Amino acid sequence: MSEALPDHPPARQRVLSGMRPTGALHLGHYHGALKNWVRLQSSHDCFFFVADWHALTTHYQDRGEIERNVYDMVIDWLAAGVDPEQATLFIQSRMPEHAELFTLLAMSTPSSWLERIPSYKDQVEKNRELATYGFLGYPLLQAADILIYKAAYVPVGEDQTAHVEVTREVARRFNRIYAPERAILPEPQELLTETARLPGLDGQKMSKSAGNAIAMRDAPAVVEEKVRTMPTDPQRVRLGDPGEPTRCPVWPLHELYSTAATQAWAAQGCRSAGIGCLDCKQPLIQAIHKEQEPWRERAESYLANPKQVQWIVEVGTERARAVARKTLREVRTAMGLAY
Amino acid sequence: MSEALPDHPPARQRVLSGMRPTGALHLGHYHGALKNWVRLQSSHDCFFFVADWHALTTHYQDRGEIERNVYDMVIDWLAAGVDPEQATLFIQSRMPEHAELFTLLAMSTPSSWLERIPSYKDQVEKNRELATYGFLGYPLLQAADILIYKAAYVPVGEDQTAHVEVTREVARRFNRIYAPERAILPEPQELLTETARLPGLDGQKMSKSAGNAIAMRDAPAVVEEKVRTMPTDPQRVRLGDPGEPTRCPVWPLHELYSTAATQAWAAQGCRSAGIGCLDCKQPLIQAIHKEQEPWRERAESYLANPKQVQWIVEVGTERARAVARKTLREVRTAMGLAY
Ligand code: SF4
Ligand code: SF4
Repeated sequence: MSEALPDHPPARQRVLSGMRPTGALHLGHYHGALKNWVRLQSSHDCFFFVADWHALTTHYQDRGEIERNVYDMVIDWLAAGVDPEQATLFIQSRMPEHAELFTLLAMSTPSSWLERIPSYKDQVEKNRELATYGFLGYPLLQAADILIYKAAYVPVGEDQTAHVEVTREVARRFNRIYAPERAILPEPQELLTETARLPGLDGQKMSKSAGNAIAMRDAPAVVEEKVRTMPTDPQRVRLGDPGEPTRCPVWPLHELYSTAATQAWAAQGCRSAGIGCLDCKQPLIQAIHKEQEPWRERAESYLANPKQVQWIVEVGTERARAVARKTLREVRTAMGLAY
Repeated sequence: MSEALPDHPPARQRVLSGMRPTGALHLGHYHGALKNWVRLQSSHDCFFFVADWHALTTHYQDRGEIERNVYDMVIDWLAAGVDPEQATLFIQSRMPEHAELFTLLAMSTPSSWLERIPSYKDQVEKNRELATYGFLGYPLLQAADILIYKAAYVPVGEDQTAHVEVTREVARRFNRIYAPERAILPEPQELLTETARLPGLDGQKMSKSAGNAIAMRDAPAVVEEKVRTMPTDPQRVRLGDPGEPTRCPVWPLHELYSTAATQAWAAQGCRSAGIGCLDCKQPLIQAIHKEQEPWRERAESYLANPKQVQWIVEVGTERARAVARKTLREVRTAMGLAY
């Protein structure tokens, strides 16, 4: 069987993803998200945004922090290889259109849908300060972020599928009430991608606030110092004691950065006490240095030219706005608000 | 004691008031709100808006209705004597700025403040369909409507003081968190004004849906027919039976429309069976006809020129937007979102 080739390639499907500006990005962000963004940008119509309103839902009392981090984060994205020619980069708080759709969707969304989301209950139990109307509405604001661009896919970690599910429910209910003949808001799908979860220097979740992170733009000497001082298998006290990689916080770095040959060398050397821990860490320091090199180069060029970064965001914001406005027009018309 | 006159009159304080576009306005709207608006417009800087988003919080499933009623209602306002040269008239849904402030205020507003408002609990108990995130947030959207214009006063009925109280709490908390040195959002005060509550033709609350209303723009013959067929004191079955005005749904109309002399004539004639009910109603029909005359004249001129009404709303919307944008800039700066 053969099929005629289409005259023009099919339109790339839209992917939407946001990131909260909560600090300088680290290797965990790169391997957990950015690397995937870079991979997606050539095959999909990617919209990547700074989720600064979302940061306010949980950090509404430290907004100084947010302000400093917005452009820094965009530079980290660009450093990682996100290409503003291929992807659309913008800032959520520059898009009142999201707030308008959020407000309109609120009218038909049962609050019980939001109350029952597990992450809401858990977090509010831990911290009563989070029991705000905005934090409750966080998944709805996220739904507005996604639906306003009619995104086909949302890359998510496994713990966020409940949020995309709510987005679909919100879209379905909106379509049923306001656009029963022809759906206006398409239901997005999760894009479950293989991303690596990189633990921090102490084996716990890598995070800036835990002080166990290697920042994407840490200087080579800082990276070296951080890796050299990483704790290792606690049972390997002296050089002569054999160790066990599966007990060692360094090992996940090998799994991520080292070839099979290097991994075999490290595991064998560890178990036989044939190598020291500093020997074992050396190829990792090299690998991270090598990974960082292009990031540093790109970041330097952007840091030398901050106007260019602002311009990239400006262009992205206007590109996103054109799409958002079009959706809002359809939504307003369907709701009988198009006068 | 004497005081020097100021060189220029002090700026008029701002009053904000909105009305839901839920149908052709009737005499209850006029005496309960519009008459007061007309009174306030020369002494205050009045912002009057069509609360179409608010209508969606409770009527999200009948938006066709809302659409038809928006301009019709503005014509009723103008007919009543609201003067677009003095007051600023606009449509809520044309102001994404309200949605943005609503979204931003949501971040610092505890949901418990909204859940405990009596009208929320009551209405949700009566109708589960109302248990939406938007309906819960209705007082917060109202707070955004008020605070974005830094209104000094909000005319309210006695059952709405809880809403203005929440607005003050929201403003206070925002100022404390984000603008501790110099408050950005002033706390509005209630303007408890004497307005008349005009019952409907059957003595119940006047409302279009109850079918007991006299519309502001009902034709004279319709008014006459409606008043002539109004029920009266049920104990006055025959002309010869004496009646008691306090038992009669017609009486509140006399209290509102008739001079003391006419009231005395009607009461005395009723109690002595000296006049018939149709006699008693005659001065009311005349009074309503007289009240409607200028409304009809103004409405006719606007109906003949719909572009003018659109233009009035356009000018009002832009005037309101300038104020709203200024407030939003201050709010964004205080929240660390001014990049
Ligand atoms: S040799 Fe390598 S794997 Fe073994 S304990 Fe030391 S750092 Fe860990
Ligand atoms: S005479 Fe007037 S007040 Fe008395 S019952 Fe008739 S309508 Fe009512």
